[in-house]
Amino acid sequence: MAELANRLELEDLRDNLREVQELLHRQEIEQELLARQEMPRHALVEQLVHQQHLVALQAKLEGLHPADIAFILESLPLQARLLVWDLVKADRDGEILLEVSDAVRESLIESMDPQELVAAAETLEADELADLAPDLPDDVIQDVIRALPLEEREQLRAAMSYDEGSVGALMEFDMVTVREDVTLEAVTRYLRRLDELPDHTDQLFVVDREQHLKGTLPLSRLIVSDLELDVAKVMIPETLTLAPEERAEDAAQAFERYDLVSVPVVDDLGQLIGRVTVSAVLDYVRESSAEQALAEAGLREEEDIFAPVWDSFRNRWSWLAINLVTAFIASRVIGAFEGSIEKLVALAALMPIVAGIGGNSGNQTITMIVRALALGQLQSQYWRTLIIKELSVALLNGLIWGGLLGLLAWWLYASLQLGLVMTFATMLNLMLAAFMGVAIPWVRARFGRDPAVGSSVLITACTDSGGFFIFLGLATIFLL
Amino acid sequence: MAELANRLELEDLRDNLREVQELLHRQEIEQELLARQEMPRHALVEQLVHQQHLVALQAKLEGLHPADIAFILESLPLQARLLVWDLVKADRDGEILLEVSDAVRESLIESMDPQELVAAAETLEADELADLAPDLPDDVIQDVIRALPLEEREQLRAAMSYDEGSVGALMEFDMVTVREDVTLEAVTRYLRRLDELPDHTDQLFVVDREQHLKGTLPLSRLIVSDLELDVAKVMIPETLTLAPEERAEDAAQAFERYDLVSVPVVDDLGQLIGRVTVSAVLDYVRESSAEQALAEAGLREEEDIFAPVWDSFRNRWSWLAINLVTAFIASRVIGAFEGSIEKLVALAALMPIVAGIGGNSGNQTITMIVRALALGQLQSQYWRTLIIKELSVALLNGLIWGGLLGLLAWWLYASLQLGLVMTFATMLNLMLAAFMGVAIPWVRARFGRDPAVGSSVLITACTDSGGFFIFLGLATIFLL
Repeated sequence: MAELANRLELEDLRDNLREVQELLHRQEIEQELLARQEMPRHALVEQLVHQQHLVALQAKLEGLHPADIAFILESLPLQARLLVWDLVKADRDGEILLEVSDAVRESLIESMDPQELVAAAETLEADELADLAPDLPDDVIQDVIRALPLEEREQLRAAMSYDEGSVGALMEFDMVTVREDVTLEAVTRYLRRLDELPDHTDQLFVVDREQHLKGTLPLSRLIVSDLELDVAKVMIPETLTLAPEERAEDAAQAFERYDLVSVPVVDDLGQLIGRVTVSAVLDYVRESSAEQALAEAGLREEEDIFAPVWDSFRNRWSWLAINLVTAFIASRVIGAFEGSIEKLVALAALMPIVAGIGGNSGNQTITMIVRALALGQLQSQYWRTLIIKELSVALLNGLIWGGLLGLLAWWLYASLQLGLVMTFATMLNLMLAAFMGVAIPWVRARFGRDPAVGSSVLITACTDSGGFFIFLGLATIFLL
Repeated sequence: MAELANRLELEDLRDNLREVQELLHRQEIEQELLARQEMPRHALVEQLVHQQHLVALQAKLEGLHPADIAFILESLPLQARLLVWDLVKADRDGEILLEVSDAVRESLIESMDPQELVAAAETLEADELADLAPDLPDDVIQDVIRALPLEEREQLRAAMSYDEGSVGALMEFDMVTVREDVTLEAVTRYLRRLDELPDHTDQLFVVDREQHLKGTLPLSRLIVSDLELDVAKVMIPETLTLAPEERAEDAAQAFERYDLVSVPVVDDLGQLIGRVTVSAVLDYVRESSAEQALAEAGLREEEDIFAPVWDSFRNRWSWLAINLVTAFIASRVIGAFEGSIEKLVALAALMPIVAGIGGNSGNQTITMIVRALALGQLQSQYWRTLIIKELSVALLNGLIWGGLLGLLAWWLYASLQLGLVMTFATMLNLMLAAFMGVAIPWVRARFGRDPAVGSSVLITACTDSGGFFIFLGLATIFLL
């Protein structure tokens, strides 16, 4: 919190990045960087560091919160990023690595040698180390584990064993526990002896000798209660607890619903093993919604905007490949009707409209349903209600937009029959979109898959191929 | 918090919904509902309420947290939802209305008469009222305002004046302030006199007579400090503050970066007017990411999954209309090349592939850039770097996928020239997608628009029309 003390407003936070960039962009530094691209970076930094602006930059960085430095690193292209990274004091490397995005973390770790990495990792708590471990080289992790005291080594092992997306992955071990048979007076004396309380300590956890959770003692109760009383008298004996293997998403919903700050995590035996704080939940919520947005657009993971071309390609290729396969299938559907198109070339111009509106409408349906599923709002008995409703909306849309498109086709190509085919094809494709928009998430949820991943690609594949087939098929039957 | 005390695990929370639904679905209730759809709901409820299952249901609801009841209401179709709503004790209506989604709130408010609404509103704090006000009928609001004490009336007026998406909209007025010239002993005595501290009180705010913020006193400091000391000695004199007109998004980022629980809000004169808590921020982050996901799929706002068909139609029509216009333009581009398609019908089958892969790739680029813009990571001097990078990725993608598509076209239609046209068209459309994927958000950000809204529609419009034009144009020049 110390870093925060001198700052008063959000405006100041934004200014930091601007200042750092100005310092970086004074001509001498940029020119040096350009002139010496071939020189090893460390040597370069040493040569530059005597310069006035770099000294100013280093001083500026020293005063910043690790999260702000992380933000600055994310906003800089690789060369400038590594220059700034070298100026940061080594004992802060660990905290900063925790804060940066995965992609940027990779670029920073690549620039460090094993000793630096071990030194950085050793400044972290066990739960933080567990977050970092997947990105570190194996020999570095082994070195770090060997240097840990026994208790922390076990904590690290436990933390690393939990799945991403589980409560265990959000959990931290840093918390204050007290016994129920002591007075509040004694608790207060104990707290005074601690240097400071862990962040987000809104409550103390009451445990017995075997670490079984007996209740919680909110600080706000401790403050307003008679100090003569025993903890057992004042504590809340039963409270919400989490299990490490539960879904992080469920825990996040509980934090949202009940406005929680911290929740104890207990194992099967009721023993306290850690806690989850609202700040871990906030990070989780932000990250998981970002991931979903990226996944829907077909990006495998968060991308460093300044990533090398090859890294970007690897992050994006798989969905492009899937898109290519589905587009190829749609193309073959058209291919099957080449004879019809040859006879009536207007079909080629009109068919993408039918496919397009189906895709758009299907995406609306599937997005809504995937969201309701994620929130647990969709009970199995209501699927039928839902599919009837979606088909009705599709029918209404079909009448209105299909009718409009039919009029347009009639006007453009002076053929009433073509207009009617257009109207019916649009209506049918919208109903196909509604049906698949409900069916795809239902089937995926049934088989235990995440209904969100790739939902957009799947629905579009259906409405493209389906739209071409319906339109060209109807046209072949009724027009030719 | 009282409602939480009896609950131990997340599993129990999930069971609540199941139990309520079971109670609702015992045959007698369902049959009654079906048989009496025409009867006024209140009469129906009264007739039913003597039945055992409804009594059990009411008892069950009584024990639940308002947020849990809100969740249950969201998960029920309209008829069952209103039945449950009538069983909820009237004095909890206000809290529950705050928790449900906008769409469901509308359906509940429609079912209440003005007196019920006034009674519900009067149980709320000024900042909560401000959240509810936009959904209430005007005469209800006037009645409520008239009944408020002067101070709260002014708070309400202030709260209602802030834009959605500003810090003011997240702010609450409930907080504890102390003077700097009293001892911690006196502070503790004062706190004891309060019934309970407001939720999320991790710190007290230190103010002078004119409410100027002088510093903050974290509870964790209060607990571990000598009670003889003055507040001025122990408080943190300078701390992060927010202004009511700042962007909620910026405040959320500050909460995330610095792991905050509460932050004071001050006006231009440095006077304390309220505070923002992490739980308001968590709700905001969740809501705004949901809104963005919905907007990208072309839904105007969050939709009640059981909404009447007509409501759903209104929520979705505008984007379908836009899609229709862009699809029509793309169709006219094809129309301009009908002569070419007539001569070489293979073009009709291949053209959607070129357009599709461009759209997919453009969406990847635009999603990444919109995200970086939202996080403030994109400085103006790096646009050029970025566009060069994206064009390079597009070139690489074009060589690989375009090459593959060229081979496919060659194999399918036994024409090397057609294959070459396919390859070059794919490559050019991918480069168009990359260029527009950077240019669209840049232009929109320049003109102060939200670069996210409709980004997907815009990029797809470019790559569809562009893809058809490039492919059919190249084919006309080189093949015919």
